[in-house]
Amino acid sequence: MSHIRSEIYQLHDYVPGKSLESVKAEYNLDKIIKLASNENPLGFPFSGEDLKDVLSASVMYPDMAHHPLTDQLAARHEVSSKMVVLGNGSDDVMQMIALSGITKGSEVITSFHTFSLYRHMAHLMGANYIEIPMTDFYYDLDAIAAAVTDTTAVIFIANPNNPTGSMYSYSELRAWLTKIPSSVWVVIDEAYVDFTTQDDSVANMLADFENLIFLRTFSKLYGLAGLRIGYSVANEGISTLMQKTRLPFNVNTVALTAASKVLGNHDYIEKSLAMNIDGKQFIYDQCQAMGLDYVSSHANFVCINVGKSAQKVTQDMLKRGVILRALTSFGLDHWVRISVGTAEQNQMCFSALRDVLSK
Amino acid sequence: MSHIRSEIYQLHDYVPGKSLESVKAEYNLDKIIKLASNENPLGFPFSGEDLKDVLSASVMYPDMAHHPLTDQLAARHEVSSKMVVLGNGSDDVMQMIALSGITKGSEVITSFHTFSLYRHMAHLMGANYIEIPMTDFYYDLDAIAAAVTDTTAVIFIANPNNPTGSMYSYSELRAWLTKIPSSVWVVIDEAYVDFTTQDDSVANMLADFENLIFLRTFSKLYGLAGLRIGYSVANEGISTLMQKTRLPFNVNTVALTAASKVLGNHDYIEKSLAMNIDGKQFIYDQCQAMGLDYVSSHANFVCINVGKSAQKVTQDMLKRGVILRALTSFGLDHWVRISVGTAEQNQMCFSALRDVLSK
Repeated sequence: MSHIRSEIYQLHDYVPGKSLESVKAEYNLDKIIKLASNENPLGFPFSGEDLKDVLSASVMYPDMAHHPLTDQLAARHEVSSKMVVLGNGSDDVMQMIALSGITKGSEVITSFHTFSLYRHMAHLMGANYIEIPMTDFYYDLDAIAAAVTDTTAVIFIANPNNPTGSMYSYSELRAWLTKIPSSVWVVIDEAYVDFTTQDDSVANMLADFENLIFLRTFSKLYGLAGLRIGYSVANEGISTLMQKTRLPFNVNTVALTAASKVLGNHDYIEKSLAMNIDGKQFIYDQCQAMGLDYVSSHANFVCINVGKSAQKVTQDMLKRGVILRALTSFGLDHWVRISVGTAEQNQMCFSALRDVLSK
Repeated sequence: MSHIRSEIYQLHDYVPGKSLESVKAEYNLDKIIKLASNENPLGFPFSGEDLKDVLSASVMYPDMAHHPLTDQLAARHEVSSKMVVLGNGSDDVMQMIALSGITKGSEVITSFHTFSLYRHMAHLMGANYIEIPMTDFYYDLDAIAAAVTDTTAVIFIANPNNPTGSMYSYSELRAWLTKIPSSVWVVIDEAYVDFTTQDDSVANMLADFENLIFLRTFSKLYGLAGLRIGYSVANEGISTLMQKTRLPFNVNTVALTAASKVLGNHDYIEKSLAMNIDGKQFIYDQCQAMGLDYVSSHANFVCINVGKSAQKVTQDMLKRGVILRALTSFGLDHWVRISVGTAEQNQMCFSALRDVLSK
């Protein structure tokens, strides 16, 4: 008798994108730019030199329990250290949420046109995955509240949303949260919130709603995608449950130290924010000039209607050395997502896009 | 209605060890050595300089699918690349095994006195955890085979075992494997096998037993514990199922590159192996001179009977600046595990141990 979990057959096989090197070789390109994964175009926030010592000490297991990062993050959000859970990227934290709070046969609710990992988590745990249609590229919060039943375990809200860049203020969420039973865990995935501002604090929200979980990452504004580190902020009850499922050494030594250091790297953060504002404005201007619909974004990417098959357009862009993300898998067949790059990268991207769309 | 998974209440809360810094401060020590976690005493296999480039490129997500490491590991074991699954340490790979192959209510069988994460995985998935008593510090393979039922999902064999250092040859395992139904996944956790030799290859074993999964890590001989990287080698059927549960970017860029490079760092590997052989001999000699029982070890640690409360002894050792592992949580109240250190560390350790045991 086989003991393979039937749940996993629902999981999609991971289809890796092409590597930069293979795209270069395939299309015989000298230069290639990747504006497909919402990474920080300013580059890594440190020189190798800055992290040499922690790298040389990486012969030992990470001392996660005593690393200053947890206290730094707690201070940053004005919460207790027990309310912070560190993960190997926010994906890993999301999996802890799934392993602690999603039972088989329960329901996971989110929006259509959002981050695919919410579906993965629902299916991994054998839960029913419910996607509510969007309203004008925004989560339809009322429809989500109306969809909640006794079997709803978790609601995932990407805010700002990937890939649309739309965002609700905490005040708006607050009004909505009063309609959600406190037994339902509400995950506010704030991977991109560092590019914008909210109208209240995480601590105040958590004080009023015991069932909230905020997710953060160092992969976007903070430029550490390759190192893998993210975290959650939630009340102690939920955080303690999540910690039970955390593998003891889930975050590596280099990521712990880099995350700790980057929080104080104000120059990098300010430059990144300024570059993002300028880049988005350039992209909006270009779209307007070209007559392309786009969604005004609170994040570091813009979602653009190219008016024809996004897969075809991104293929054609690839030949010109620009990797973009077709939003076909997000259910948006004519839309592409462009990560904001450097000024030079944005120019190169739109020059190629004009060329591609004029054919 | 709450949707918290009842399974997780069985999981033990993680109790972190003290940090090196806090031990120093508490006992007013200048120097402290940690021989508690079986890390490589030779230190990290590279200088910071060697990995500067990959660190600087860590602004981007890891390109796991195209990283040369998978092919290198496949070549090393003479298997196909699809038979290799990379993890954020072998813990992460073990969790993929759990998520794909351990159903609720099934059974997980292993030995008493072994690595605690097997219990974690069983309880995480709501399986019954069955520990078979040891025979003279060896897994009792016959008793394990006799314990298999229709509901057995996975058997975990640490080989060499942590913390006893005992090991079965592949020939011995082969004879035993014929008694295990092919529906049962048998995980051979080889975290420490790099310190010894086996009498056949992983590829040959996998060719004959479709239900085998080998686990390897870069945390021990290869000195990369802090970076977090391990992997499994199993047949394509099992590997494909495991891959479905793998988070897309589970291994960081620095770990991928360091692991790839260290496989060719023959000088480091040879020095580490020689230091381990010399160190173990020194520890055996000291134990014999002191009249202490120990288990002959195939790994980079030795399990020693200190004849009294191991917790008391390790506390007393701490005051003398030596961190050892009491095996109380492994069910061995009078035993400590000493990781093989440098010659100087081993001497310091036994000098302190003589002092402690003479009191």
